[in-house]
Amino acid sequence: MAYDATKLKDFEIAEQAEKNMPLPYEWAEKLNLQKDEIIPMGRICKLDFMKIADRLKDKPDGKFIEVTAITPTPLGEGKTTTSMGLTEGLGMRGVNVGAAIRQPSGGPTMNIKGTAAGGGNSLAIPMTEFSLGLTGDLNDIMNAHNLGMVALTARMQHERNYDDAELAKRNLKRLDVDPTNVQFGWIIDFCAQALRNIVIGIGGKMDGYMMQSRFGIAVSSEIMAILAVATDLKDLRERIGRIIVAYDKKGNPVTTEDLEVAGAMTAFMRNAINPTLMSTAEYQPVLVHAGPFANIAIGQSSIIADRIALKMFDYHITESGFAADIGFEKFWNVKCRFSGHIPNVSVLTATIRALKMHGGGPKVVAGRPLPEEYIKENVGLVEKGCENLVHHINTIRKAGINPVVCINAFHTDTKDEIAVVRRAAEAAGARCALSEHWAKGGEGALELADAVIDACNDEVNFKFLYPLELPLRQRVEMIAKEVYGADGVSWSAEAEAKAKMFEENPAYKDFATMMVKTHLSLTHDPTLKGVPKGWTLPIRDVLIYAGAKFLCPMAGTISLMPGTSSDPAYRRIDVDTETGKVLGLF
Amino acid sequence: MAYDATKLKDFEIAEQAEKNMPLPYEWAEKLNLQKDEIIPMGRICKLDFMKIADRLKDKPDGKFIEVTAITPTPLGEGKTTTSMGLTEGLGMRGVNVGAAIRQPSGGPTMNIKGTAAGGGNSLAIPMTEFSLGLTGDLNDIMNAHNLGMVALTARMQHERNYDDAELAKRNLKRLDVDPTNVQFGWIIDFCAQALRNIVIGIGGKMDGYMMQSRFGIAVSSEIMAILAVATDLKDLRERIGRIIVAYDKKGNPVTTEDLEVAGAMTAFMRNAINPTLMSTAEYQPVLVHAGPFANIAIGQSSIIADRIALKMFDYHITESGFAADIGFEKFWNVKCRFSGHIPNVSVLTATIRALKMHGGGPKVVAGRPLPEEYIKENVGLVEKGCENLVHHINTIRKAGINPVVCINAFHTDTKDEIAVVRRAAEAAGARCALSEHWAKGGEGALELADAVIDACNDEVNFKFLYPLELPLRQRVEMIAKEVYGADGVSWSAEAEAKAKMFEENPAYKDFATMMVKTHLSLTHDPTLKGVPKGWTLPIRDVLIYAGAKFLCPMAGTISLMPGTSSDPAYRRIDVDTETGKVLGLF
Repeated sequence: MAYDATKLKDFEIAEQAEKNMPLPYEWAEKLNLQKDEIIPMGRICKLDFMKIADRLKDKPDGKFIEVTAITPTPLGEGKTTTSMGLTEGLGMRGVNVGAAIRQPSGGPTMNIKGTAAGGGNSLAIPMTEFSLGLTGDLNDIMNAHNLGMVALTARMQHERNYDDAELAKRNLKRLDVDPTNVQFGWIIDFCAQALRNIVIGIGGKMDGYMMQSRFGIAVSSEIMAILAVATDLKDLRERIGRIIVAYDKKGNPVTTEDLEVAGAMTAFMRNAINPTLMSTAEYQPVLVHAGPFANIAIGQSSIIADRIALKMFDYHITESGFAADIGFEKFWNVKCRFSGHIPNVSVLTATIRALKMHGGGPKVVAGRPLPEEYIKENVGLVEKGCENLVHHINTIRKAGINPVVCINAFHTDTKDEIAVVRRAAEAAGARCALSEHWAKGGEGALELADAVIDACNDEVNFKFLYPLELPLRQRVEMIAKEVYGADGVSWSAEAEAKAKMFEENPAYKDFATMMVKTHLSLTHDPTLKGVPKGWTLPIRDVLIYAGAKFLCPMAGTISLMPGTSSDPAYRRIDVDTETGKVLGLF
Repeated sequence: MAYDATKLKDFEIAEQAEKNMPLPYEWAEKLNLQKDEIIPMGRICKLDFMKIADRLKDKPDGKFIEVTAITPTPLGEGKTTTSMGLTEGLGMRGVNVGAAIRQPSGGPTMNIKGTAAGGGNSLAIPMTEFSLGLTGDLNDIMNAHNLGMVALTARMQHERNYDDAELAKRNLKRLDVDPTNVQFGWIIDFCAQALRNIVIGIGGKMDGYMMQSRFGIAVSSEIMAILAVATDLKDLRERIGRIIVAYDKKGNPVTTEDLEVAGAMTAFMRNAINPTLMSTAEYQPVLVHAGPFANIAIGQSSIIADRIALKMFDYHITESGFAADIGFEKFWNVKCRFSGHIPNVSVLTATIRALKMHGGGPKVVAGRPLPEEYIKENVGLVEKGCENLVHHINTIRKAGINPVVCINAFHTDTKDEIAVVRRAAEAAGARCALSEHWAKGGEGALELADAVIDACNDEVNFKFLYPLELPLRQRVEMIAKEVYGADGVSWSAEAEAKAKMFEENPAYKDFATMMVKTHLSLTHDPTLKGVPKGWTLPIRDVLIYAGAKFLCPMAGTISLMPGTSSDPAYRRIDVDTETGKVLGLF
């Protein structure tokens, strides 16, 4: 039944599977949805969130399963593959199951390669749509966000050019924006390092307002953050209106509502509020909503997708970006707090490859062949690397959840290597399952599926790491020590001044703490593997996303706009002009 | 049967009509299309161009009707309303009819107001989708275009940072772009004057390449021009690869193909190549494809839309942007030349209001009440203004087409005013029809429909204004004298130098001349009405769109990035959070 993943590339499996993929109205029947709850978009569709949420509002929620991972190599350790595989495995057990994942960003697609759709027999399909903008949510976010900057810069121009009397004729009050204290930038969904730092508004009276400005990658947009955490359209609208774009010359925040642009920004988001429905390669339903990058953003699929998925499915699987120190931490202390959803269990994805890296194996570099240590048996490296696994198990247990460790099997893994991981996981109190979903699809994920079903019967004593009452700097200290394993936190003068200001302002009391930190290490330094000891987390700045209600401490040198490399993926992408098929994307 | 357009606003008529609008698969049946030729996108759909063009390739083309206008007031004179009304009128006569129009830009929608969808009973629906990005083509263009700039700026950074040996490792040859001679800019679909002139690449070695740059409005993008004139996907791919983004230090062009990004840019356009199908308020089919602004762009619906519409319909109506001096001139000498389609007739839309303005009436300003001259009978102003109408009739006759003048009726028009127009039109040799489609839909457009059917039996001796062999400066001279009524052309030193260079290069021999000029006057000065005499057309620059194969002489001070005003439309736009309906857009 499964495709031969050792011979077929992911996109070839996808192409085969896509031939029998359910069409929009077939999904309606399969999932017991009303026809008008399906919004077809080519061969995929969106789900009408408001209609489904309203019709099913009295139905009890299904089981809620989160999928996270150990600290990955730069190749990724198959968290999405595991999410898809577990969905397929539960499907094979006859369970009414579905999943929710985030959409990928055009930046990596054009720079490295397409997907983030899983792999082998545990793929989200159709892959081309998934990799190239899906149903337009990222474009909607880009338009909504950039319209805010159009409004800000036009207003600054007109306030410079007109006196108060002229402004009053247009029913405008002077906002008096401080051009040296503009918080908002522009966004674009590519790695456009040339737009990281720019000067805009050059020219005459009618050419805007001259000042420094910047572009970030679209998925780091506050609008994306809002899409991830909004609970409904009303909440989305209110959050968009609270975005702080700048401060006035007295230091008071200027919001999108002050610019009278929040309603129009929301108009661009009217379709994006509806999750997209895709399929696993075995035709289980996958909702796709919100964006990636738990390092620089929340990087979670949306609360809205979870809201309807928990009603539609008896078992709903949601994925948290990157490793447990950032993805799970944000799921736990931010997303669950905002949504009120309590997870039944977490799945912690591990690979022998990543464990070897943490045990001291040589550097893993995308695009270069794997060193021999990763291909041949090396029990010693695995054994030593298990400290990273155990660290993440302990983090998840702090939330009151006993995780299921999933060993995402590779064909080079040996019995002894696997036995070592099982022993370490079980010694740390976790369940453990070997899963061969990549090679065998749902059939290969039955051990994992059974472990998850079993774990869902456990009692969960879910608790947050910190209460919202805890001041920002103490929270960061707690996350750094308890989740990252740091000795403490050091603050730059600018970051500390901002942190104090935010702590003192009662308006920000219920804001979440949204760490910005690399995912390639428990620390802020991507080169440090395993479980580094005796280090301090440096915070260089704190951003405020007042609409999302996030305070974002920035650790290390991470940037909100990645760069395009000297050998970017777009060099290999083309279109077959006879068929319209996109080539070279994967 | 018609809605009371004097009581209901356009969006209220649209809302009523949208209740019974055919759904995607109902259109398939209505238009004899195969199910897989319909690509549903919510309640509207795209048409699969390649499948339809291929299936119907041996079918003879239907009659081809172009709709243009006299020089408009800033309010517009109902060219789209007339296109929709004529479609409805022909439909009422039992004719198998359809139309093609361009999609509007987000710039005016957010700055002035939504639509460009016609009005009254002659509307394209659904209006909200139409005004807010439709099926995503503009976003696709934005991504395709900006990816080109990402590739250019990243390449400039890497070429600065690496020596030839390092570049060779990545299989790259130095392109040696001249940073002072970059042609391409970025685009955004808003009026963002603050991005008109910018400095990018500020920072260190990894932050791009510091240079001047600029954003234009999305519809002025060369990718939009290419979408309008490409005849199929292969042609689109080749044209995208020929875009000149910059010149190297020796003055040789550097293209998107040189940057190895043209294939990926085309990948973003794979859906945009398919026209969107909408409906008139009386449920006749309307294809929507490519963009507006015949002043700064080609501003025509696409050749691709015409190609399938001429097969699908016995009578196909296509609209040319703005007045006949720019919209029709580009349809005639560019679009028809590229497509090989020969129009059977042109409809020249006129209103009593615009004729009064040309006759010397007071200034018409959007958003302010109309002066009394426009509301009360004033035969003298109409009579004098008819010189503008006759000028455009004569222009169209130069193409070998005898136009049908359509008086787009307003309730304030009087019998005597209308009689004056009829006399002037007929004296100039044209047919003339009064049309009340705004008030009465197709029923009101029967006189026009009959005149068009009649005119389609005329023999057409279609000829271009100039042969492609004519050098650029002589062509511009000819357009200025024969179409605009100028005495001659003056060239800035820069424009003349460029023109000479283009004339001398055999690579540009078959390029079209694509004028950039205001639509509000026959001249380059928007304040001059009627038929100005004794003036010279100043050309300040010549752009090259080598992918579209356009040389674009820029007349006067017109800019490719409009500005957002001090009282923009977005102030009044919001979303009803109970229903998801967009409010205040129209």
